[in-house]
Amino acid sequence: MRVHIIGTGLLGASLGQALSAQNYRVSLEDTSPTAQQLAADLGAGELSRPGDPDIVVVATPPDVAAQVIATALRKYPNATVTDVASIKTRLLESVRAMVTRDELDRYIGCHPMAGREKSGAIAARPDLFTARPWVICSDEDTPADRLGEVVAMAEATGASVTHLDPRIHDAAVAKVSHVPQVIASLVASQLRHAPLEEVALAGQGLRDVTRIAASDPRLWTQILAGNAEEVRGVLTELRSELDEVITALDLGPGSTGVLARAIALGNEGYDRIPGKHGQAPTKYAVVTVLIPDTPGTLARLFKDIGDLGINVEDFRMDHAPGRRLGIVDVSVVPAAQQELEIGLSSKGWQIPESAIEKEGNA
Amino acid sequence: MRVHIIGTGLLGASLGQALSAQNYRVSLEDTSPTAQQLAADLGAGELSRPGDPDIVVVATPPDVAAQVIATALRKYPNATVTDVASIKTRLLESVRAMVTRDELDRYIGCHPMAGREKSGAIAARPDLFTARPWVICSDEDTPADRLGEVVAMAEATGASVTHLDPRIHDAAVAKVSHVPQVIASLVASQLRHAPLEEVALAGQGLRDVTRIAASDPRLWTQILAGNAEEVRGVLTELRSELDEVITALDLGPGSTGVLARAIALGNEGYDRIPGKHGQAPTKYAVVTVLIPDTPGTLARLFKDIGDLGINVEDFRMDHAPGRRLGIVDVSVVPAAQQELEIGLSSKGWQIPESAIEKEGNA
Repeated sequence: MRVHIIGTGLLGASLGQALSAQNYRVSLEDTSPTAQQLAADLGAGELSRPGDPDIVVVATPPDVAAQVIATALRKYPNATVTDVASIKTRLLESVRAMVTRDELDRYIGCHPMAGREKSGAIAARPDLFTARPWVICSDEDTPADRLGEVVAMAEATGASVTHLDPRIHDAAVAKVSHVPQVIASLVASQLRHAPLEEVALAGQGLRDVTRIAASDPRLWTQILAGNAEEVRGVLTELRSELDEVITALDLGPGSTGVLARAIALGNEGYDRIPGKHGQAPTKYAVVTVLIPDTPGTLARLFKDIGDLGINVEDFRMDHAPGRRLGIVDVSVVPAAQQELEIGLSSKGWQIPESAIEKEGNA
Repeated sequence: MRVHIIGTGLLGASLGQALSAQNYRVSLEDTSPTAQQLAADLGAGELSRPGDPDIVVVATPPDVAAQVIATALRKYPNATVTDVASIKTRLLESVRAMVTRDELDRYIGCHPMAGREKSGAIAARPDLFTARPWVICSDEDTPADRLGEVVAMAEATGASVTHLDPRIHDAAVAKVSHVPQVIASLVASQLRHAPLEEVALAGQGLRDVTRIAASDPRLWTQILAGNAEEVRGVLTELRSELDEVITALDLGPGSTGVLARAIALGNEGYDRIPGKHGQAPTKYAVVTVLIPDTPGTLARLFKDIGDLGINVEDFRMDHAPGRRLGIVDVSVVPAAQQELEIGLSSKGWQIPESAIEKEGNA
């Protein structure tokens, strides 16, 4: 298969690297000769004329994607044209306004849900899409053979393919990606002028809530602007619940029911987030181990767990303020918890009493 | 030292277990005979009359703490009386209103910043306070010997002691603990009615932002109500920034600067969060390893890292939707990155190109 990639930033260059490794013949194109050359030098593909490509992937910034897609549909009359933009509805409307019905049938919008806080070809990596969702927005007019080509290309990168309507995709990413980003940034923003003695009390809870607040403003400005309606809808709903909480805090005694409800509704929403591997949410047994923070200690811990033949479902290292200690929470299926606790204790590891839950930071 | 603990819930019982293991003589008291007996059975202390305790620790729910502290100051005229409530200013004012000046000098407010999403003596563990901040709110009138007793007791639990003014403490926990809890709950709340096909797109970013949304509504209602003013102040500031974002999304083109600014201010606040062990923030080198999700694989990975003599500063396992794969990000000091990458590659581990940064979820 011959794939022509237009736009050699992080996503375009990473896709080129991934497909080149899977015997796809990849050609590259970018408005910046430098970016184009860098991507080629990094193994993303060739700079030769694409000739008659089977697939054209538009990996430009979202704000110019529609025009580039329309041009590509015209320039490569036999190619299936797809893209990697993280918003789909507005883009599809723009493309539809610029092309013929036949051309539109050759366009299949995609959103590989992979990214980094670093951008550009220099940050490209062939496994960027591995095990990430790759959303494909086709419709009943999409020819089966063209859809098959795009699915095959997505799967060649190691991504896991999901088919969604553009509107459902945009509503979904607003809730699971765009709004969490805005809110994490706003929470972190409140720490801007906090004295060090105050931020010194930060626990794992704050670290988790604000981790993605380190994201790139330029990238996110385009994403948020491109999905403005959906994001605004969710943020407005969130704000009305925030207003209730602020009012309740203002009124004091008698309105604590509102506070309890806010936390309880959060429990409810939290329980809807799928567990790992896209499975239904699972309550794992968490075994906590206290370890000295020295080279090789984690190695010994995980070797001991491995020797017990137990599979670690998830793990977290909590940060230990003021001392060189690590608190490791190891998640395993409940059935394996007792064996793990007894096994590790017998090997001299410090384990508290059994408990099937997660750590809080109250 | 003789310590009398009033209130044998999670914190009281855990404290009793920790101190009993450090040769403190601990006596227990709770309004519930059952809770009291359970704590004693779990090794938190004795049910005998305390006689003339050196320290009385009030570990009741915050809403009754003031009255219990005042009563204890009167009942035990030689004891230093302290507490574990997570809010300090309002509590101190209530106590001051109920006791004499001499009695007030024997009261030293504390907040051990440890907790779980589970409550009650049944969830108690002797290492609950290990490596967690233990805030002590003393003032110039606090006798040095009494302050020394409380510091010694806190350190005996393995906690790391911090001295703060009550108002600074309350302002700090509002920013680093209470507001993040409210916001995480509100973000999770937006997922309540999201179809499964939408939440199926959830990535690590959403999981991190909402992890603490699983917290206990009863506990948090008391905490939020007890620090209402500080929490309302921060939430109101956050809401005004949220309003700006919503307005910008409404206006569309031309107002994207507001969106970029919101994310940039989040970067700024994020950078103020201290790294592990309470040190200044450190940028670690992140080495990403792709592993099959089978028993013993993590063990082999960390054994290989240990064999290289490299200390793991932090690690994260990303969830792989739709396939049995794990993506492990191992954080090490930048100086050790290359050695780790070369070392792991030579042992057959799948490593992408070098990159000093964190994963995003754009």
